[in-house]
Amino acid sequence: MSPTPQTLTAERILEATEEVLRRHGPAKATVVDVARALGVSHGSVYRHFRTKAALREAVTKRWLDRTTQVLAAIVAAPDLDPETRVREWLAALFAAKRRKAFDDPELFATYTVLTTETAETVVGEHIAELTGQLTEIVRTGVAAGAFTAEDPAVTAGALFRATDRFHDPHYAREWEQPDVEGDFEALVDLLLRGLRTRG
Amino acid sequence: MSPTPQTLTAERILEATEEVLRRHGPAKATVVDVARALGVSHGSVYRHFRTKAALREAVTKRWLDRTTQVLAAIVAAPDLDPETRVREWLAALFAAKRRKAFDDPELFATYTVLTTETAETVVGEHIAELTGQLTEIVRTGVAAGAFTAEDPAVTAGALFRATDRFHDPHYAREWEQPDVEGDFEALVDLLLRGLRTRG
Repeated sequence: MSPTPQTLTAERILEATEEVLRRHGPAKATVVDVARALGVSHGSVYRHFRTKAALREAVTKRWLDRTTQVLAAIVAAPDLDPETRVREWLAALFAAKRRKAFDDPELFATYTVLTTETAETVVGEHIAELTGQLTEIVRTGVAAGAFTAEDPAVTAGALFRATDRFHDPHYAREWEQPDVEGDFEALVDLLLRGLRTRG
Repeated sequence: MSPTPQTLTAERILEATEEVLRRHGPAKATVVDVARALGVSHGSVYRHFRTKAALREAVTKRWLDRTTQVLAAIVAAPDLDPETRVREWLAALFAAKRRKAFDDPELFATYTVLTTETAETVVGEHIAELTGQLTEIVRTGVAAGAFTAEDPAVTAGALFRATDRFHDPHYAREWEQPDVEGDFEALVDLLLRGLRTRG
């Protein structure tokens, strides 16, 4: 049954877009493809997304936001000591990326193409949100006296870049290596030693 | 004038191979292309390199080794304190990669293709050499009491991966960003704090 125009929300369109991408790869998912998949006129999709670029940006942002939301819970979790919060946040980012890469490799490959082709702002904003979360974690640790960081935003940027290997899709193939967990732990240990306030 | 067989060393063949790659890109540089560029029979090139794969591996290794040699001088330099040695080594690696990327972008692009297509052992051995040098630097710092590292090889691996952003060709476009020097310094500062022995 086709949805009535009333039920055709932006979220339903984005769900359908992701399904089109999953089945047909990054070349597909124009407004017309998605309208056809939903059994609605392309006019009703255009009412929500004016262009193919806008639709693809929105679906990419939705995919990236799923990770951001998981990580926000760690930023907000009460009763975590600062080091544990850094460790859990970095581990959750790595785990989220690995799940995306391995549980649904076609969709991951598709989104990897989309993130390079959509406006850089979508990815830029995603990275800014992630480093913003890390900044918050570092700042809380400094306030608690656990961390030393002259400028928490600069330190958060350094932490994010230092762990590229464990969240940049470029390295997805490495995430299957047997040593990857140990490599991740060794790196996080070194970074936490760097953050820690000296007694 | 064509070289006589006596003067046709492996090094001369590799120089010519690099010139063929620079002019014609990664698709070229077969044994026959290189023989033609040198004005010799392909039989004389085959005497040094039995296959196209062997030739391409050797020229890739030669390109990578140029960086390794520059860095080896920093490992061996007398009278550097351990932190300065780490900082200079990482900065020299970054500088060498940037020079390769910007001074001769076509050749850099070509070698980037070659490193993904040649036997993984060539790149693997290069990375093992580099992390071996870093291990030596960390070990010396531990012996001097300046660094704390349970296993210098593990720590060296962490340092190398932490700085992927500043040596992996994947990030070459980022190396032109105005903030890149500051980002590099912030990361190295954090890593050095992690290495430093606590008083």
